[in-house]
Amino acid sequence: MSQYSDSNLWMTTKRIETLVDGIFAIAMTLLVLSIVVPDNLGSLSEAAFQANLTKIIPKLFIYGLSFLLLASFWRANHKQFYHIKSANPSFLTINIVWLMFVSLVPFSTTLMGEYGHYYTSNVIFQTNLFMVGILNYLIWYYAAKNNLVDEKMDPDMISRYKKFNLYLPILSLMAIVLSFFIYSWSSLIYLFGFIFRRL
Amino acid sequence: MSQYSDSNLWMTTKRIETLVDGIFAIAMTLLVLSIVVPDNLGSLSEAAFQANLTKIIPKLFIYGLSFLLLASFWRANHKQFYHIKSANPSFLTINIVWLMFVSLVPFSTTLMGEYGHYYTSNVIFQTNLFMVGILNYLIWYYAAKNNLVDEKMDPDMISRYKKFNLYLPILSLMAIVLSFFIYSWSSLIYLFGFIFRRL
Amino acid sequence: MSQYSDSNLWMTTKRIETLVDGIFAIAMTLLVLSIVVPDNLGSLSEAAFQANLTKIIPKLFIYGLSFLLLASFWRANHKQFYHIKSANPSFLTINIVWLMFVSLVPFSTTLMGEYGHYYTSNVIFQTNLFMVGILNYLIWYYAAKNNLVDEKMDPDMISRYKKFNLYLPILSLMAIVLSFFIYSWSSLIYLFGFIFRRL
Amino acid sequence: MSQYSDSNLWMTTKRIETLVDGIFAIAMTLLVLSIVVPDNLGSLSEAAFQANLTKIIPKLFIYGLSFLLLASFWRANHKQFYHIKSANPSFLTINIVWLMFVSLVPFSTTLMGEYGHYYTSNVIFQTNLFMVGILNYLIWYYAAKNNLVDEKMDPDMISRYKKFNLYLPILSLMAIVLSFFIYSWSSLIYLFGFIFRRL
Repeated sequence: MSQYSDSNLWMTTKRIETLVDGIFAIAMTLLVLSIVVPDNLGSLSEAAFQANLTKIIPKLFIYGLSFLLLASFWRANHKQFYHIKSANPSFLTINIVWLMFVSLVPFSTTLMGEYGHYYTSNVIFQTNLFMVGILNYLIWYYAAKNNLVDEKMDPDMISRYKKFNLYLPILSLMAIVLSFFIYSWSSLIYLFGFIFRRL
Repeated sequence: MSQYSDSNLWMTTKRIETLVDGIFAIAMTLLVLSIVVPDNLGSLSEAAFQANLTKIIPKLFIYGLSFLLLASFWRANHKQFYHIKSANPSFLTINIVWLMFVSLVPFSTTLMGEYGHYYTSNVIFQTNLFMVGILNYLIWYYAAKNNLVDEKMDPDMISRYKKFNLYLPILSLMAIVLSFFIYSWSSLIYLFGFIFRRL
Repeated sequence: MSQYSDSNLWMTTKRIETLVDGIFAIAMTLLVLSIVVPDNLGSLSEAAFQANLTKIIPKLFIYGLSFLLLASFWRANHKQFYHIKSANPSFLTINIVWLMFVSLVPFSTTLMGEYGHYYTSNVIFQTNLFMVGILNYLIWYYAAKNNLVDEKMDPDMISRYKKFNLYLPILSLMAIVLSFFIYSWSSLIYLFGFIFRRL
Repeated sequence: MSQYSDSNLWMTTKRIETLVDGIFAIAMTLLVLSIVVPDNLGSLSEAAFQANLTKIIPKLFIYGLSFLLLASFWRANHKQFYHIKSANPSFLTINIVWLMFVSLVPFSTTLMGEYGHYYTSNVIFQTNLFMVGILNYLIWYYAAKNNLVDEKMDPDMISRYKKFNLYLPILSLMAIVLSFFIYSWSSLIYLFGFIFRRL
């Protein structure tokens, strides 16, 4: 139907990429707000000030982890959109829901930085990352199924991409399960993940 | 008058789109700041911590709603600007006033997340969305009336776009009216709206 | 000297425009953080809650004013850069100092919204805007003097642009002077300014 | 291996530049959040209000310094990427780690603005800037070593760029050392640096 297609001509992948780039840059930079500078430390000795600042160390660790994970998803997205050539309304909706979970990451990062010693915080953080990961997978799955991907792309490679995009949500799922046992270390699984992928 | 037109040559629609994309990406990401991580929960039992965190649930709901509504307006804007081919100073002014209300949404979202049990908060939130919606409508109305729209566009389609752009402000208006009766549920009207549009 | 010019080839006006667009979009959106939602109003009557919210009204007014003024500078900048065709290191430095004062506006807006009843706040706010305005003027002045402007541009128009760019800093200067007498109304001068320019 | 290269075709320098521009614009604008407007000054005399505001002066100074330093790195990066023509996964990773330290600057700026009278704060701030500087150097070093730089570029100039990119991290290193002796003035070394480069 020509009218339908006409009303969707505006929906190029370029527009989606602009929104994705903007939201990722902002979410990654907002992560820094999770490292709140503590109040009322103005009149301490140097040693007491240092002792108070050590509380910031776990926040720095979780900041670095979230920054690198968001960067990984940004990379994965650019890899996908290099091959995705067109869009439709449902595809745009999946992308928007994905971005909704992406821009929630500064919240769950702050929660982890402040209350990482509760396993509830760990489960929320890992679930947030799992949602980002599974929706990222869904974007590629939907695009491949609905012929939005460049037709010159090798079908073998399309399914290899599918597997590759399952890598991060599976890590998150393992981290959620680990949270119930050794929650304060469950985030370390991403570190093993990074190293493993290098090998 | 050649001088007049010359001094307005700089005003391409592309520039407006850049500002619109930037402000939407930032406003949508700033929404996450409405979900403040509560203070002083550091030394509770796991169950007590979970009980405290349940206060965050309505904030998550209103975050999701605002994110999806802003995304809807971003989509509507891109649909409009696919057909709008030129600009003039008044048109730019309408767009700027529209953006002023768009970047107010993180405030009214925070107000709703924190004080959604007052009907005053509901009225402010719905009025904010109504202003965003009605100005979005005005952008298309003004562009159509002042020949800023692509001349090849079918007049039937131009008026169909007008009706389509009244959809969201009418939902907001209904939500404002509902606020006076059953304010704590008035936001649900958007959910019905989303489902209704699918059918 | 060819080496010198080579090392400056990277400095296109396009790069400056990207930074300008980004910083303006963010500064304009961050203005909303000046309207802080008050704490501890959770268990009041509807009337008492409304009474507390009235404190937000001056903050909304100053938010709107700052948003519209920043938008005016953004417009003026785009008008300038439509004619500016090249850049040099000093020109870039002026632009960066200008942006430093632009991104200070959310701070002076918050100060005004919170403490607008002190004339000190008014002077700081108006001085901030004056610095933004005078540096905006300087950008055009420097570009015109150093042949960075499109050579096809009419010299008459160049000097008309100069005068036009003095309009906002002169308003700020008048507002600073007014601050010493009737500070709580000094910001209204911009309103007269907006109306006057229309006539 | 054709498959390997194919899976990296998406990695253009243009994408990296978009992320760099976005994160710099946001980090530079977020710096303003380090100048917190103090609470509870609503019912003071004009003189007492002014006396309280003087606490903001060192925060303004450190805001200006961080803004200008980040702008310097942004300039250096654009100078580099004018010559860098291709990318690979490791190169992208170095850039992301660099951006992780760039978007940490608003945190260390806030720490300095609030607690600049401790030498610990000075060391953290200077170390943050040193990491930004040394990674900026590493980006150019890696690009030159792995033939990512435009092959038409003069080898002499490539090594001159290397030296130029060591300028800022060396200043930071000197500032770290100075922090142990006269920490409250150690940041002034950048001012001398700016002046020195002009000569």
